[in-house]
Amino acid sequence: MDEYALIKKIIQPTYRRDELIKGIGDDSAVFRSSEADTVVAVDTFVENVHFTKETLAPWQIGYRLLGANISDMAAMGAEPLFYLVSIVLPNGIDDHFVVEVFSGMDQLAAKFGIDLIGGDTVSGTELALSLTIIGSVPRGKARYRSHARAGDVVFVTGTLGDSRAGLQLLLQKEQIESDDTLRQRLIKKHQQPEPRVHFAKALRKIDRVALNDVSDGIANELHEIAEQSDVTIEINDAHIPISDGLRLFSKSEQTNFKYFGGEDFELVGTVSETNFPVVKKEGEKLGVKVTEIGSISYNKERNGNVYVYKEDSIKRLQKHGYVHKSRENNDEIKDD
Amino acid sequence: MDEYALIKKIIQPTYRRDELIKGIGDDSAVFRSSEADTVVAVDTFVENVHFTKETLAPWQIGYRLLGANISDMAAMGAEPLFYLVSIVLPNGIDDHFVVEVFSGMDQLAAKFGIDLIGGDTVSGTELALSLTIIGSVPRGKARYRSHARAGDVVFVTGTLGDSRAGLQLLLQKEQIESDDTLRQRLIKKHQQPEPRVHFAKALRKIDRVALNDVSDGIANELHEIAEQSDVTIEINDAHIPISDGLRLFSKSEQTNFKYFGGEDFELVGTVSETNFPVVKKEGEKLGVKVTEIGSISYNKERNGNVYVYKEDSIKRLQKHGYVHKSRENNDEIKDD
Repeated sequence: MDEYALIKKIIQPTYRRDELIKGIGDDSAVFRSSEADTVVAVDTFVENVHFTKETLAPWQIGYRLLGANISDMAAMGAEPLFYLVSIVLPNGIDDHFVVEVFSGMDQLAAKFGIDLIGGDTVSGTELALSLTIIGSVPRGKARYRSHARAGDVVFVTGTLGDSRAGLQLLLQKEQIESDDTLRQRLIKKHQQPEPRVHFAKALRKIDRVALNDVSDGIANELHEIAEQSDVTIEINDAHIPISDGLRLFSKSEQTNFKYFGGEDFELVGTVSETNFPVVKKEGEKLGVKVTEIGSISYNKERNGNVYVYKEDSIKRLQKHGYVHKSRENNDEIKDD
Repeated sequence: MDEYALIKKIIQPTYRRDELIKGIGDDSAVFRSSEADTVVAVDTFVENVHFTKETLAPWQIGYRLLGANISDMAAMGAEPLFYLVSIVLPNGIDDHFVVEVFSGMDQLAAKFGIDLIGGDTVSGTELALSLTIIGSVPRGKARYRSHARAGDVVFVTGTLGDSRAGLQLLLQKEQIESDDTLRQRLIKKHQQPEPRVHFAKALRKIDRVALNDVSDGIANELHEIAEQSDVTIEINDAHIPISDGLRLFSKSEQTNFKYFGGEDFELVGTVSETNFPVVKKEGEKLGVKVTEIGSISYNKERNGNVYVYKEDSIKRLQKHGYVHKSRENNDEIKDD
């Protein structure tokens, strides 16, 4: 592989952002900071740990990885601006494969008007990509997991568990007919997630919103909010929105995927009851379904925990499984 | 490895920068942009490609990798502010090893008053670290490789080739006596490079300076300046500063290390003759040796090239070896 020839193929011919002063080609990229705050996150993806070539086409690997990063911006209420990509390439990897991965990223980058402004291409034995994403958010409008307050409504966008269900279908390697729209939608949700940037930006008119993106499963994300806000979260199992596609799976798979599946890149948030109608309305304007799934309370004994109402009983939700409330001192017991 | 326990051990207990609004713990870090421009770069380091455990202690791996990134900031004339680290950990790697790597980074971070504000810890088969560094530079003061102009003086800080010579000593695995200061200095230069941030900042009083850091060897860095500024660079071999330690090596090693060794993380730059005394003086104030090694000219036929005067002859320097001037159409011929 000629590194320079490859880099020429993957850099953007032109840049999209006015904020950019210097793109790829010097020791660093330079951009002009506005009045807004700057937001930055990094994610690393290793082949056969975070993705496989069996379930994603090369361009989808790029699309999905950048999607996960852009979703981090949405979760902050921020607008993505730039990204940088470091890639470890195993010897013998096809240049064409790499070009395709970057073209998938650029496809999503074009949708959001963001620019690839730096990176590194190195040799190794294992394909790994590290993405840095940079965005901006108006001062004081960054959305933290610590912003939930007692009395808040807990809401979620879209439907949950679809990405994990789509992965399941891909792993089963059964042929999915092109007119099987329910299953095709699940697969698309896995391969080409749609980060909720526009929706998150639309919430800027609200003073306080806690936000988190569903990257590791809502069980995990709700715990992060409960812990960092020092509140108790109660959700109603029956209210968790799932797609008709997910209903094709067994009950236990549905439960597993919707709570622990992750990688839906939907947003889960909390907002005052007064402001919840605004959230709903902004969702409607953008075609983003917003569902109330629970509420926030303050209970010293229970803060940091998440409870699920289901079939007339309350169970404490674990980050990775249920515990019966009566047995909650025994963390080992899970009924899933 | 318990990822959460490990992360707790490697995050900073407190932050150093006033600009930071939100550190580690949410979807992204947030910092307040000032009037200055923001500068960002990424570098990835793979074990046995970019470093080995044989030549660096765990803490030195961290120190050196962050040093390389901070040097990118110096090369832009920028002040480093924050860094993010993604690390791919092979199964079975010792937590203690990882903690040590991060403590080495923090040792250097403390020197420059910068903060670790994000990252990712993932599993893989190969130890790899990807560092993102973020800095700031006053508007219009970013130092590009494209800023060299005909008539400029070419200068370099410190001495060249020492890091590569230090690596050579480490690879030979001979015991170096603790009072062998010349050789110890070479080894230290390899294991704990000192990025020239303060010096680069001191040059801000000068309107135009082209800067590049010596990461891949001065032959490569000079070419980047010659190409991006569309100028011709001529340097005098006898003027390239080398240390007494490097003089302990053979003549051909000296030549090889000083031109192509790289990883010295010194700065090479160009500035008008009028301003060169200012550069010298700022160096003196900071105890940074600054040496004039050549000059810039504009010659349509030769722009983008670097020439070396040595022993009464002029040779065209290759990025990775010499070519006799009389044979310069034949890129294959090198005399080193």
